[in-house]
Order: sequence, then C-alpha cells, then structure tokens
Amino acid sequence: MTINVLGYAAHSPKTDLEPYRFDRRNPRPDDVVIDILYCGVCHTDIHLVRDDWSNSTFPVVPGHEITGRVKSVGPDVTRFKPGDHVGVGLIIDSCQHCSACKQGLEQYCEEGPTYTFNSLDRHDRMLTFGGYSENIIVSEKFVIRISDGLDLKGAAPLLCAGVTTWSPLPHWKIKQGANVGVVGLGGVGHMAIKLAKGIGANVTLFTHSPGKEQDAHRLGADNVVISTNAEQMASINNKFDLIIDTVPNTHDVNPYLPTLSLNGTLVMVGFFGNLEPTMNTSPLERRRRSVAGSIIGGIAETQELRFLCKAWYYCRC
Amino acid sequence: MTINVLGYAAHSPKTDLEPYRFDRRNPRPDDVVIDILYCGVCHTDIHLVRDDWSNSTFPVVPGHEITGRVKSVGPDVTRFKPGDHVGVGLIIDSCQHCSACKQGLEQYCEEGPTYTFNSLDRHDRMLTFGGYSENIIVSEKFVIRISDGLDLKGAAPLLCAGVTTWSPLPHWKIKQGANVGVVGLGGVGHMAIKLAKGIGANVTLFTHSPGKEQDAHRLGADNVVISTNAEQMASINNKFDLIIDTVPNTHDVNPYLPTLSLNGTLVMVGFFGNLEPTMNTSPLERRRRSVAGSIIGGIAETQELRFLCKAWYYCRC
Repeated sequence: MTINVLGYAAHSPKTDLEPYRFDRRNPRPDDVVIDILYCGVCHTDIHLVRDDWSNSTFPVVPGHEITGRVKSVGPDVTRFKPGDHVGVGLIIDSCQHCSACKQGLEQYCEEGPTYTFNSLDRHDRMLTFGGYSENIIVSEKFVIRISDGLDLKGAAPLLCAGVTTWSPLPHWKIKQGANVGVVGLGGVGHMAIKLAKGIGANVTLFTHSPGKEQDAHRLGADNVVISTNAEQMASINNKFDLIIDTVPNTHDVNPYLPTLSLNGTLVMVGFFGNLEPTMNTSPLERRRRSVAGSIIGGIAETQELRFLCKAWYYCRC
Repeated sequence: MTINVLGYAAHSPKTDLEPYRFDRRNPRPDDVVIDILYCGVCHTDIHLVRDDWSNSTFPVVPGHEITGRVKSVGPDVTRFKPGDHVGVGLIIDSCQHCSACKQGLEQYCEEGPTYTFNSLDRHDRMLTFGGYSENIIVSEKFVIRISDGLDLKGAAPLLCAGVTTWSPLPHWKIKQGANVGVVGLGGVGHMAIKLAKGIGANVTLFTHSPGKEQDAHRLGADNVVISTNAEQMASINNKFDLIIDTVPNTHDVNPYLPTLSLNGTLVMVGFFGNLEPTMNTSPLERRRRSVAGSIIGGIAETQELRFLCKAWYYCRC
C-alpha cells in the first residue's frame, strides 16, 4: 500500500515550485518512514529544477538536507524506532558490493548511487522525490542518526553542504594548524569555514564580494582575501595545504593555484563541467600541486560528522 | 682561473647547434670538475633551444643528463675523488634553506633552483652552460654518484627522464600490483614504463601510434591502449591508480580521466601551459580523482634511483 504525500514540485525548468501530491512506495522490511520537519536548500536543488545538467526528469521534488522524526519502521529495522531524530542526505541507496561501497564511500558507487530525488530507485525503477514534502521512506542503512540535543533545523545543512566540505578534510589529512582556503561564501562555503575551523585549521575565505568579511569572521574565518585584488592574492602565495572551492558555476581557477603550498590541493566540490577559462598547468608542476574533485561524503562520514558537530556544538547556528 | 671548454651552442631559436668555446668558472672549494663522457637528449633541451617558453637566453648550451668521470675536486669536497663515475641532472644549486630544500625537494626550491643550463648561477650570476660540452663544474651536493658497474651511457637518461618518472611513484605510493598508465612513449615515457615495472606495477602504455606496441612490450608494458580507440579506452574505465602523462605539448587530457580509479591521479610531467581543449571537471568529482603536476626529482631521490637501478640491472639497455 503506497503512501500519498504532499510535496512541492517543479514541472519544468521554467516554472516555480508548486504543491504536488504523489505516492511513495509501500515500505519495505528494511525501510524507515520519516516525518520531515526541516529541509535545507542547496544549489543542487536549483541545478536539477533548472535542468542545468540536462538530465532532470520532471516533475522534480527537490530537497536532500532532510531532518525529521521516525514515524514507523519495517520489521527488519534494528537501529531506529518511532520518535527518533534522523536525517537523510543526497544518497538513499547504492549497490553495496563494489569497492567504493565496501569502503563506505557510497557516493562513488561504481554502479552509481541512488539519489534522494530525481533518480530511479534501483529496486522498483520509480522516480525518487526529495525532502520538500511531508515524509520520506529510506532504507535503514542510509538513514543518519541525529544525536539528542542537536537542533534539527541547524543540523539539516550538514547532510549535504556539511559532509561535502567535511569529507575532503580527513581525506587530505588536514589537521590542527593546517592552512585551509575556502572559495565562496554560499551555503557550502559557510560550512567549509566552520568545519575547517572546528578541527583547528587556520582558515581563509576567498571572495569576490567585499561585503562578506564580517560574516566570514563571524563563522570563524581567520582571514578574508578579495580574490580580484592581485596584491592580496600575491601576498598568500604557497600558503594553503587545501583549498575547498565551493563555487557552483564555471569560474577561473588559475588565480588560486599559486596560493597552494608544495603538495597542496584545490578540491572542487561545487562545479561540474568545463573549466573556462582553461587551466594553466605550470603552477601544478612547479610545486607538485593538484586539482581534485569530491562529492558529498559516505554514510559513515556523514554519521561521524554528526557526532563531531554535537561535540563542537557547531550545529547551533 | 677559468677553464676554457668546447661545447655545442644554439645562438638563436632558428639555428642549429654549432661548436662554441666558452669559459667555465674557476672551481670553488666545494666544486667537482667533471669530464663529460655522455649526455642524454631531452625535450627540455629542445624547448629551451627553440625558446618555446619565451625565457631562453642565448647562446644556449643544452644538456642535463650528464655522466662522466671526476677530473679534480676542490679542497672541501669529501664524497668524490678523481676517477669516480658521477652524474649531473637538471639542477646544480638551490637555496638549501627553504622548506622544500630541507625536505630534499630542491626542484621545488622556493627561491627557484639553479638549472644546469640557461640559468643564472646564484653566486656569480653567470649564465650556466649544460652538458653538450667537454666538462662541467658542479658543487658536490648536486653531484650524483654512479655505482660501479652501471653503464654510464645507459645511466645518463635516468638523471632527468628517469627521476622525472620515478619521483611520482613513491610520492603517490605506488607499490607492487598497482595499476599505472603511461601516456606517450618518448624519452620520458620509456623510462616511466621501465621504472613502474621495476617496482612491480601493472603497466599500460597509452599511445596514438599503433606501431609502438612492440617497443612498449619490450620495455616492460603489460598492455598497450590506442588512446584514439574509444572502445579500448572504455574497457579500462576506473583502472589506474596513477597515470604519468609524459606528453610535452598541449593535448586533451579528458579521455584519460575516466580511466583513473577512485582517488587516482593523473600527473603531468612533460607539459607546462594551458590545457587545450579545456578540462571537464566532472570525472574528478565523480571518483575523487586528481590532476597534478610534478617536475624531475630531488637530489636524494636521484641518488636513490641510481641505487635502485643498479639493483634492478635496469640501466643496461
């Protein structure tokens, strides 16, 4: 028996979201039925609603930074019970047997993960609908426990923007005292500042917009550099162990490369596509620097992040 | 008292090399005077002679894969004596106090290393002249010992092409059984195959030229892929832990990116400049892949490589 749900959908790239009734699947034995209380707004929602990547299937019900309360659980569910506070990010399933899944990196599933919205469920091939809706049904393995005491509203963005900027930090071995740059102060950039600062890094925001200094410092940035100011940029050559580039549209990465340290990495987490203008490789060779990409994080990392955030009291903003 | 030397110089980007007499400095106390017996030909010699990077100072005496015999040593030299077999690569000096130099990575010296040719000596500001000449004078710290029993002719290319392709292997933690791709089978590419194979990697050559299979297999490649063959390229998606891209001119890196494994790196060691066509970043994000650059290697790495090559008997070709 399916569950009829009220959500908000875009019916084309040109139309606004509007109320939309649809059916969710009859819960499977390993499913958790979640009443959605909060859902973040991420640029990926906008990309899919606007069909920026030419792969959207309409109607699109966006939303993948979901927090809420367990309504019911299937008979095989062991980790959750009704009333528990839980979250759901961008991934709700994966093959679970490839090398990436076995490492807990479901976002890199070799068969492709199932996304929370605008994806095909790998069991029934139905289009998935996201968190701009009353409830959602997700296999237990892809449900994140929200620790008691964490604010559900503040915690929601951790599920995508948070883990997207968290995952590169341990992967590139960023520790206390490291120098981390963050490009852009949108929804993802603000998380990058807070999380990098949370582990004790020295954090610099790169921004085009002089008006953002105050916000950046409030969020924890030690320094703010206006990326169009050549003098400021030259003063930080060879500085950063890691730059997290959160810009969601094509942009010039060349000015940032000389600011990386020997062996430093610029990791792109927001933009997928052709670099325009093109990249000049010389700064890479001259200091063994790298340009990398990363998307969101695995389920274990997301769970880890929630524990950390409870410890830091960083979700209470 | 300077030493007058016969070499071969280009006097402009358009002219051939021709005999040229010049003076080398009066040896300093830490200098080793080396009679040159062999010198490799590397594409960097051609780049500088042709002024491809618009920074050549003429006349250019190229040559930086030098092997020979010690003729005399200054009073402060402790590691070499007349008659010793020695080598000199692309670097003959560096600041020796920056972070990179302290790590033995003189090629990334923050003040810029002094190159064997077409560079300014950091003490007397004289133009340096390379190994296409009778002898060379180099500070002891930048002279490589060639183990007895190594063929001086075969060993010469290890000093640039060799260490250029060796250095990325330990840096990116390539071990026995790893999958390594090599793009291009020129002077650098052939070294990449031999050295990656030498440490037990499974080695694939990417080449445009179907005629190179036999040479590649003779040098140790396990597989050869024609990079313009879409079917062959698709069959090796997600395979390589490291791709060493030795192509010295601008080229399309996009076809290689999907062949990298999760966390895999394509390292460019031959080309410095604008990527044309531009790079599409999506394959980076989708498997946390990286594109990096690397140049030659430090003095300690070069010395290490010579020991390894003696052990492998890999120089005897």
